[in-house]
Formats: sequence, C-alpha cells, structure tokens
Amino acid sequence: MVYDLVIIGAGPSGLSAGIYAQRAMLKTVILEKESFYGGQVLSTYEVDNYPGFPLLGGFELADKFREHAESLGVDFISSEVEKIARDGDLLKIDLNDSQPLTTKAVIVATGSIRKKLGIKGEDEFLGKGVSYCATCDGAFFKEKIVTVVGGGDAALKDAIYLSRVCKQVYIANRSDSLKGAKRLQDVVDKTDNIHVLWETELESINGDSAVENIGIINKKSNEKSSIAVNGVFIAIGSNPMTKFLEGLVDMDGNGYVISDETGITNAKGIFVAGDIRVKNLRQIITAAADGANAVNSVERYLENF
Amino acid sequence: MVYDLVIIGAGPSGLSAGIYAQRAMLKTVILEKESFYGGQVLSTYEVDNYPGFPLLGGFELADKFREHAESLGVDFISSEVEKIARDGDLLKIDLNDSQPLTTKAVIVATGSIRKKLGIKGEDEFLGKGVSYCATCDGAFFKEKIVTVVGGGDAALKDAIYLSRVCKQVYIANRSDSLKGAKRLQDVVDKTDNIHVLWETELESINGDSAVENIGIINKKSNEKSSIAVNGVFIAIGSNPMTKFLEGLVDMDGNGYVISDETGITNAKGIFVAGDIRVKNLRQIITAAADGANAVNSVERYLENF
Repeated sequence: MVYDLVIIGAGPSGLSAGIYAQRAMLKTVILEKESFYGGQVLSTYEVDNYPGFPLLGGFELADKFREHAESLGVDFISSEVEKIARDGDLLKIDLNDSQPLTTKAVIVATGSIRKKLGIKGEDEFLGKGVSYCATCDGAFFKEKIVTVVGGGDAALKDAIYLSRVCKQVYIANRSDSLKGAKRLQDVVDKTDNIHVLWETELESINGDSAVENIGIINKKSNEKSSIAVNGVFIAIGSNPMTKFLEGLVDMDGNGYVISDETGITNAKGIFVAGDIRVKNLRQIITAAADGANAVNSVERYLENF
Repeated sequence: MVYDLVIIGAGPSGLSAGIYAQRAMLKTVILEKESFYGGQVLSTYEVDNYPGFPLLGGFELADKFREHAESLGVDFISSEVEKIARDGDLLKIDLNDSQPLTTKAVIVATGSIRKKLGIKGEDEFLGKGVSYCATCDGAFFKEKIVTVVGGGDAALKDAIYLSRVCKQVYIANRSDSLKGAKRLQDVVDKTDNIHVLWETELESINGDSAVENIGIINKKSNEKSSIAVNGVFIAIGSNPMTKFLEGLVDMDGNGYVISDETGITNAKGIFVAGDIRVKNLRQIITAAADGANAVNSVERYLENF
C-alpha cells in the first residue's frame, strides 16, 4: 500500500496536519513514538494563548487536538522513524518496531526538546514556577520576581518580554559577558527592572508548593547565596528532533530545517511543520497553522505526482 | 496618549493579535468598524478545521475569540479607519466618528470580502449548500454533487480538492476557456469526476431547506436548464480591505499586502496579519497564527523605538 502522506509526530502541528489531510481525503497516517499525543503541550501546566480557549490545561488541549483528529478518522501508528529513504518517486520510511511504510509525501512535525539545567527542583516545579517559554507563561507572573537563565538571544528576549510583565527580572548568566545580540543587550542595559547576575549558575530551585527561591553560586568567588524569586525561565536552547533528516534536508547550524511557512524544503516530497523549522515564534497556534499550510503544499505536490 | 499598538480589525487575526499583545503588556487597542467581532467567521455556518475544536458554529467560535481577548482586558473601539498618516516616528490614525489615535505601531487585520454572484438563493442558502471556501466546507459534502463557480486558479484548486471528497464536481465557467494555471487545467482534465460546464452562468440556486439544484444558462445558445447539486462553491475572487493603505504599503495587483509570515511590510511601523496579506492558505488557524507572529514582530520593532 502506498500512502499519500505520512505525518511524523503527533504534537499540535502533526495533529493539525492530520485534521487537514483527513478533510482533504488524503490517504494519511500519523506516526508517534510516544504512547501519548500532544508533544510539548503535554508538559505545559496551563495554556492561555491558543486563541479562543483561555486557561486550558496543556494535557486537556492536547487531548482536544487528538480527539478532533480521531473524530475525522485519522489513523495513528505508535512507532519511531529510523530512516527515510527514496524509492523512485516514493519515500520509504523504516520504523523501529513495525513494517516500513511507503508514501508519496512526508510531513515531519517532530518538534524540539528544550535543554534542561539538570538541577534540583527543575522537574519538581515545572508549571509551578519553572517554565521554558516566556511568551507562553510570562503573563502568569504579573508583578512577580523572576529569573531568566541563559545569556543568548532567547534569554535576552525572554527577559525583555518579562520586564514588561514582572516587577523584577534577573538574568543568571554563566560568564562575564552576554552572548545575545548587541541590540538586545542595549535594551537589557536600558531596562531598569532587569538586573544581570554575572558569572552565576543556578544550583537549586526551592519552595514549598511553588518556587520561592533559587540557590546560586558565583563562579568567580565560589560564593553561594539564595535569591527570592517566584519564577525561573530556563532559556538555554532547544534541540530540534531532526537527526534522522541529516543529509536529506537543508538545515541551519542548530539542526532546524530551512523552510518558510509553506513547509516546503529543498527535498522533493519532504515537508516540515512546527517547531523543527527555522521560524521566529514557536507557539501552539503557529505550529497548528504550519500543519495546515504543509498539507496545502502537499496537495499541490500531489497534483503533479 | 500614545499607544504601543493599534490593531485594525477584530476577526481571528486581529483578536489573536490582541491576545498576544495584551499578554505582552503592550498598550493596545483593537478597532472594529462593525458592531460585532469575528469577521468572516461569523458568516460561517459550521467550522470543523480550527484544531482542537471540531464542529463549532462560526458565531460561537468568533465569540470564544472575543471572550478570550476580553478576559485578558483587551480594549476595543468601534470605529472605522479613514486614514493612516505619519507623524514623525509615530502613526496617526483618523477615525470616522472618534478622535484620532496616535501609536507607535499598527497591525492591519481587516481581512477580505468574498465576491458574490448576486443571484437568487445565494444569500438564502449560505451555510445550507452555498459556500465560498472549499477547504473550509468541502468535507461536509462527502459523496455529494457540487458545482464550483469560476475558472481561475482558486476555482480550479477548489474543484480538485472537492473531486477527492465529492461524487461529482461541476465547474460553471463563463467563457469557453479556463483562466487558471495550465498545470491546474491539466489536473482538471485528468480527473474523471470533474466536468466543466462551458460558457455557463448560474441564474439561481434553489431548494427547500438546503440546496437541491441550480438554474443555469448557456451564454452561447441562451438555453436555460437546471442541474441537481447539493452544494455551490463560489470562487470568483475576494477583495482585501486595504484601500486605506494605498500608497502607504506595497501590494500585489489585487490589493493584497506583500509580507511573509512575520507580518512585516515595507512601511516602518505598519504590520499586517490574516487574509489581507499575500499567502497560500487563508484559514482561521493561519489568520490566528498571523496575529501572534505580527505581535512578535511589533515587539522587536518597539525594542528599537
């Protein structure tokens, strides 16, 4: 059997692609390596920026996406992709524990995984003060004290965003200089309620039912101390799940696939959607739009197949 | 008073922009010329492709967007924009029945209006067989007979899309040749269940509680007849609501603003979101993503203000 479309990943972009593909009557299947659907949304405590549906739990929203896809009859296979190879005009997808699939087109929607600090309290307080996304969760910290961890573009942008929402924003930066763009550094400098903690690493995140303070160490003096904060925004980067695409598709230096909103890549028949592509804003709403756009591009591709 | 951001239009893209701007604590107002919010969504009978929320009425979905924006404290002004002019680095927005507003940035999210045939039954059967969007409503016509009206790219794409869903697809085309791309014409030719009605105009759309048939006239022979159909997809073009932007912002030949997903235009401080920009897929989900992306671009713009 030859599929029209195989969608890899069942987060918001993959499920949205499934919904659009099913409505377009493409012969489609969604692959998901986890036993649950929703991707990173699942680990989001509360979502307040998926327009139309304020203050939904991440799990609840992921469930609604899955139910929507299932209501339209989308097929799922629980398996992990090991390799994509060309077979004439078709693509052959090897899976870790199922028979290989043959398809005319693929939408890769595998998302990314945020890098963790690996310190005490990080997992425990996820959604209770620990966040990996200022745009997603910043609004929950109105007039509070937060720290951003990191010194690159993402960390500086998060700090600037949070400075408008929060009373006080710290930036915990490991070295004595910021890696982020000069332009962003200038804004950080000019913003009264942002304070950079130089040569500082977090050792622990502490509290009772929510974050109350962080344990920090000054890398120069080795002095340990504690700062009262309500939130910790960890912005030390993400890893896109694109390893199996290496050599097949053009990527940037960090492994993100080069593509605009159409999801079209340099590789014939291989499309991308969601966090794995180079883009400015990684949100549930932009991921879901990507899924719709990528299916639109697949439809055009199949017209000429 | 100087706003950070004025959003023009309260459809999905404008309301989504309002949600994102409010969460980012930008001093924002949304302008809407109608006394109701939601834009074209309001005239959609049933929406089944906004991921996560199957089978919502258009009015209901529009209402959810508005409520979400209001829950975050977004301000609205009911007024129509007459003119946008520069005032140094600021923009001055003249309104038809309120005091002018001064702002650092504008997101134009005024959408477009679909062209109508202006025939008997067109308004009466809207959402009961008459549709202006195959991607939106095609799935409701599984195994049915439909006609597409028009002969340009949009009409041919709609017909191809519908051919996978429906039993039989007619294309009612006014002249003896199709205007759409040769590539699409080839697909139409090859598709067994698409039949072009040449030199044919619709005179009426008829039925009891839903569409049952169309009255047509052959423009060459002047012969009138009737064809049994369940659906009529009108694809004779749209008019973007961008007249007040003429001379300010680069547009294509049809009045759509030239911009990618970032919403950035050639005009400093003027951003766009939703159906009014040049894009492949005009859907609620892509409009809502545009609103989020445009606010992200505005935030970056304001960092340098």
